[in-house]
Amino acid sequence: MNKPQVPDFLKNIRVILARPSHPGNIGSAARAMKTMGLTRLYLVEPKCFPDPEADTLASGAVDVLQHAVVVPTLAEALADVSVACALTSRRRELSTPLSTPRETAPELMARARDGEQVALVFGNETFGLSIDEVEQCNRLVTVPGNPDYFSLNLAMAVQVMTYELFSHSGVTVDYLKPEDRSATLAEVESFCQHLECALDDVGYLERRNGERLMRRMRTLFNRAGLLREEIDILRGFFKQAQRFADGSLPPRKKD
Amino acid sequence: MNKPQVPDFLKNIRVILARPSHPGNIGSAARAMKTMGLTRLYLVEPKCFPDPEADTLASGAVDVLQHAVVVPTLAEALADVSVACALTSRRRELSTPLSTPRETAPELMARARDGEQVALVFGNETFGLSIDEVEQCNRLVTVPGNPDYFSLNLAMAVQVMTYELFSHSGVTVDYLKPEDRSATLAEVESFCQHLECALDDVGYLERRNGERLMRRMRTLFNRAGLLREEIDILRGFFKQAQRFADGSLPPRKKD
Repeated sequence: MNKPQVPDFLKNIRVILARPSHPGNIGSAARAMKTMGLTRLYLVEPKCFPDPEADTLASGAVDVLQHAVVVPTLAEALADVSVACALTSRRRELSTPLSTPRETAPELMARARDGEQVALVFGNETFGLSIDEVEQCNRLVTVPGNPDYFSLNLAMAVQVMTYELFSHSGVTVDYLKPEDRSATLAEVESFCQHLECALDDVGYLERRNGERLMRRMRTLFNRAGLLREEIDILRGFFKQAQRFADGSLPPRKKD
Repeated sequence: MNKPQVPDFLKNIRVILARPSHPGNIGSAARAMKTMGLTRLYLVEPKCFPDPEADTLASGAVDVLQHAVVVPTLAEALADVSVACALTSRRRELSTPLSTPRETAPELMARARDGEQVALVFGNETFGLSIDEVEQCNRLVTVPGNPDYFSLNLAMAVQVMTYELFSHSGVTVDYLKPEDRSATLAEVESFCQHLECALDDVGYLERRNGERLMRRMRTLFNRAGLLREEIDILRGFFKQAQRFADGSLPPRKKD
């Protein structure tokens, strides 16, 4: 199976970091974005940018940093945006709807697919988003987590939010799966019949509990999700055992 | 609304880092775990541990490091575990089932709830998990992401996987929501009737298009998800405008 493509409309989703203090976090955020197929980064008043530490932590995502747009105000980064999500972990006395990344993701993806511009807005590492910044957004998004220790760092929050969006992109991990073929129910049944014969041939299948034993074996092998190749291996073993039992192979001498 | 509690059965889920090279990553992983309510960390042959850099990056999660169990082999960390998930981003020629964190999470949570021990196994930063390590696990888990740049770092992978589990914990973010009350449909309708009167009183509601105009306004205010308090504010404004229109308030002089 071929590698899938990241959908083109993800370019309509931007990440905005408002007043980030540490260039390392900018780099880590860029890396997190790129792993999830996003490339458009806006920086509002970054303390140090560009910076070699940002490049180091971006790893293979230096291109995201090189194309980053630096602006003096959040308003400029949001000018052409129709849905702006303020990421926050504090209780806010605002009537803007609060939801989780998972609840919000389908709408954000649908809008991006329709060509609207969507923004994910993250605040300063220490202070988060100011009330002024939050009021420029029309959604509040909170990552669910431990209520007694909610200390998701900036790049981690970017990672979780972009992971959530990507998981609605339709890009699967199927291309990483080996091409083994699952056995059908008929193949499993035929395999179980072979097992029953082999157990009988070696004298293991006593009349009294044979039926119950085979019921357990059928349950086991139906549950196990047998692959064709595994059936072939086990059937080979059964055949060999049957050959010893019927004398068509002579007993093997141990050294 | 009170803060919810992290469910107790999350203690049945452990994170195992196999041969981690950088103490900073151990600290970041501990922090990521704790934000998602997990506390049990196992370290297989860590290069440097304990280490001050791990403590620094753990931030408020130093307790997770202090209780971390250091073992010489993965087998020891897995001895009492029934489901072990190998986190991997490479194609593996193994017939172990491959799934995403989202697909796997419900089963893992159900088993932990039933008292079974569940492990999330992460490999070395550079080399990932060895084939020997993967074979000791009974699940393969891959975080979906950009097929052309899949470079999720160790702590980020821990964050995404533990976020995914936590999102199935039933702990919501409702306690962060303000206690505003949504207006009912009847309240919105009564508000729209008030709006219609006010528009009429100020002479804005022309006969010809009044019906169409009110249909648009009804659609808008039904869509907006009005809160009770917002209705009160707008009705206050309408009343004031009506008072000027009917002469019960004298025109205001500008300075």
